Amino acid sequence: MFRTHHQLSETRRPRVVIVGAGFGGISAAHGLRKAQADVVVLDRNNYHGFWPFLYQVATGILETQEIAYPVRSLLRKQDNVDFRMADVQSVDLDRREVLTDRGAFEYDYLVVAGGSATNFFGNDELAEHTFGLKDIEDADRLRNHILSAYEEAAAASDPARRDALLTFVVVGGGPTGVELSGQLATLAHRTLPREFPSLDLSHVRVVLVNSGDSVLQTFPEVLQAHARRTLEKLGVELRLEQHVESVEDGIVRFGDGSQLGATTVVWAAGVRAGDLTAALDVPLGPGGRVPVTPTLNLESRPEVFVVGDMAYLEGYKGDKAYPMVAQVAIQQARRAAKNIEALESGRELGEFSYLDKGQMAIIGRRSAIVDGFGMRLRGVPGWLTWLGLHILYLSGLRNRIVVLLDWLAAFVSPTRSTNVITRPDAGERVAQVQERLLAAHRESPAELEAA
Amino acid sequence: MFRTHHQLSETRRPRVVIVGAGFGGISAAHGLRKAQADVVVLDRNNYHGFWPFLYQVATGILETQEIAYPVRSLLRKQDNVDFRMADVQSVDLDRREVLTDRGAFEYDYLVVAGGSATNFFGNDELAEHTFGLKDIEDADRLRNHILSAYEEAAAASDPARRDALLTFVVVGGGPTGVELSGQLATLAHRTLPREFPSLDLSHVRVVLVNSGDSVLQTFPEVLQAHARRTLEKLGVELRLEQHVESVEDGIVRFGDGSQLGATTVVWAAGVRAGDLTAALDVPLGPGGRVPVTPTLNLESRPEVFVVGDMAYLEGYKGDKAYPMVAQVAIQQARRAAKNIEALESGRELGEFSYLDKGQMAIIGRRSAIVDGFGMRLRGVPGWLTWLGLHILYLSGLRNRIVVLLDWLAAFVSPTRSTNVITRPDAGERVAQVQERLLAAHRESPAELEAA
Repeated sequence: MFRTHHQLSETRRPRVVIVGAGFGGISAAHGLRKAQADVVVLDRNNYHGFWPFLYQVATGILETQEIAYPVRSLLRKQDNVDFRMADVQSVDLDRREVLTDRGAFEYDYLVVAGGSATNFFGNDELAEHTFGLKDIEDADRLRNHILSAYEEAAAASDPARRDALLTFVVVGGGPTGVELSGQLATLAHRTLPREFPSLDLSHVRVVLVNSGDSVLQTFPEVLQAHARRTLEKLGVELRLEQHVESVEDGIVRFGDGSQLGATTVVWAAGVRAGDLTAALDVPLGPGGRVPVTPTLNLESRPEVFVVGDMAYLEGYKGDKAYPMVAQVAIQQARRAAKNIEALESGRELGEFSYLDKGQMAIIGRRSAIVDGFGMRLRGVPGWLTWLGLHILYLSGLRNRIVVLLDWLAAFVSPTRSTNVITRPDAGERVAQVQERLLAAHRESPAELEAA
Repeated sequence: MFRTHHQLSETRRPRVVIVGAGFGGISAAHGLRKAQADVVVLDRNNYHGFWPFLYQVATGILETQEIAYPVRSLLRKQDNVDFRMADVQSVDLDRREVLTDRGAFEYDYLVVAGGSATNFFGNDELAEHTFGLKDIEDADRLRNHILSAYEEAAAASDPARRDALLTFVVVGGGPTGVELSGQLATLAHRTLPREFPSLDLSHVRVVLVNSGDSVLQTFPEVLQAHARRTLEKLGVELRLEQHVESVEDGIVRFGDGSQLGATTVVWAAGVRAGDLTAALDVPLGPGGRVPVTPTLNLESRPEVFVVGDMAYLEGYKGDKAYPMVAQVAIQQARRAAKNIEALESGRELGEFSYLDKGQMAIIGRRSAIVDGFGMRLRGVPGWLTWLGLHILYLSGLRNRIVVLLDWLAAFVSPTRSTNVITRPDAGERVAQVQERLLAAHRESPAELEAA
């Protein structure tokens, strides 16, 4: 399994292994650009994904590859860093080795930045019957599924069957759930009517489910209210103070006992730290995150740093845990890089301090809410701010230009030219859910009517 | 299976069913835009693919979705046409019905434009161990495989293993084989050295195999010679008057008994008509194509037209069969559309006549050969002509702009920002071939040296 052993020579520069090429991993590598060290970045994918845009890939605004940038290209200009595409399997903290499917990597310093995964809270059935939205594979699968559902609906003769195909349930009222449901409504009521002239798209239902009494609950109340109004104007049905009990055979069962036939259910209700945290052999904190010291390393292993979604550290707005967002990962990674240089030169480590740049969410086609630096923006001014900042953080000139172009197109025209179904098995899967739904429907036809 | 029956009413306009949304199918639909008819286009994919660019997707110049355009968007402005995503299973010529996985479609007139498939000449082993390049799925799979081979090579410690990972064999000296091998050489010697600093890319071998004594043998000799020189300058090894006997366990065996370890073998040595021709229940001609009359319909069934790659008709440059190229499909489809209107109004059918617009092939990064309208261009003038004409034939403003942008980037810079591995199983597959190759190598180490 571990074919290659990447051994260290005797007289040498310190070796830093960074696990993960997300916002944290790339920022840590960049932070070490002047360090007298040999840095190697490991990731199971060869690209850095811009996850805030996943929902745009899922709804056909952007192409899959627009939100991915090859890690090797990102790191090309930095002489002291190499990349290896490798799936990390475990970490031997005593031997200071990262074990992967492409050999073992020795380290003097380790930065763990493995990001997060969808949290189904241990419910395997949910994991199997809903779509997550955490990586390119997820987004690509969801886009294929959504478009196949419309194609299947165009061919469906049974109304109950057709309605289930045109019902999209999004669980989770955070930014991902809000952005996705807004785009699903726009797709249904603005883009697709011209492409499916024979299908009555007034049957489409986009349902956003949240356990709280509002959406985007980390934002100020006035912006939450604006978001709710905008979503309702777009045609999104809000089901607040509600939760999903189960999803099976195309039927969603809610906490209050009501049910809904839906071929597409997206689970955006929770994230947790990725599975890699188990490899570190330390007791985990809330969300499966690894508790770190204020200098971002492990209490017992000062040479091991954990940053971003995987790290558990309190101190946000008083004594809350730092949220699982890109800005925290980026700033923590920079601090970890500085602290590695400090350890190496015998200087004192610095504690992590967070510059809160605020938060943003886009709702629908040209409206966004922004809360930061004392500003509260909404509507078009919010959208323009959102747009500018996101373009800035996107990697690569080519992707910036193409993304801008696609947004411009989405802004002025209802067309989405990337609405292509690229997975030959997508239709088959939709049909399978449909068959099961139909079977369930025949057994107890009344169930589907409740809602 | 056939859930829906798309029946015709009593008093009605004639119904035209077009099978296939390639160059032929879309041109037939457009040709019928003024017809008093109800047209339905069927395709198993929801997009129109621009196949001449497949090799660019395979080598990371263009993104997958840039060469695909939703059929529904293409047909949106035409009132008398609808699209159904459906996999055609058979045609009932007596009942005039097309049977699909999404119901049966009755027709008064049928246009069969199902295109072509890779011709492995019945050799299942070749089909299993080589990559075809006929659709988006193929191109996407090949790109993932190529990039994974480089990543695997970066981690390989055994030199024989690494060399096989860096050996790319392309079989077939037509435009696809030439264009692909030129791009593979450019990728190896221009793009990737900056991204794989720890890998010595002088080990890369790109081998182009052709049974003839030159390449691009439908072009004039002077342009063939230019193509050969350009390929050799790019670093492509030409193996002419040679053929591939077998491919197995990562070892390519040639007709002269020599062998070569190669993880990547692309089969671009033949095309045949797609499998749909079998459904028509007529004796097939060369290449599995359906013999048609000069008016492009079946002798026995004048209401059934066959166009493009699927149609066998002589009359090209004297008495040769019309080649399987986009221009023939487009022009035949227009003639078929006119003949349907003629049949409907009792007028005489017109025979197909071909306006030969010539042929082009791109070699490497900014060189192309053009042979048409009495012109013979090569180098940059050829490239500019190629570029202009291909942009013209590409569907959709958005894709035209993005493709131009990506070409511009490829022209001025070695970077390819779409070099991302999107298939999580690609690396696994490369590793599997490698394991088999290594096992074969251990059994008979001498074999690999021959070449």
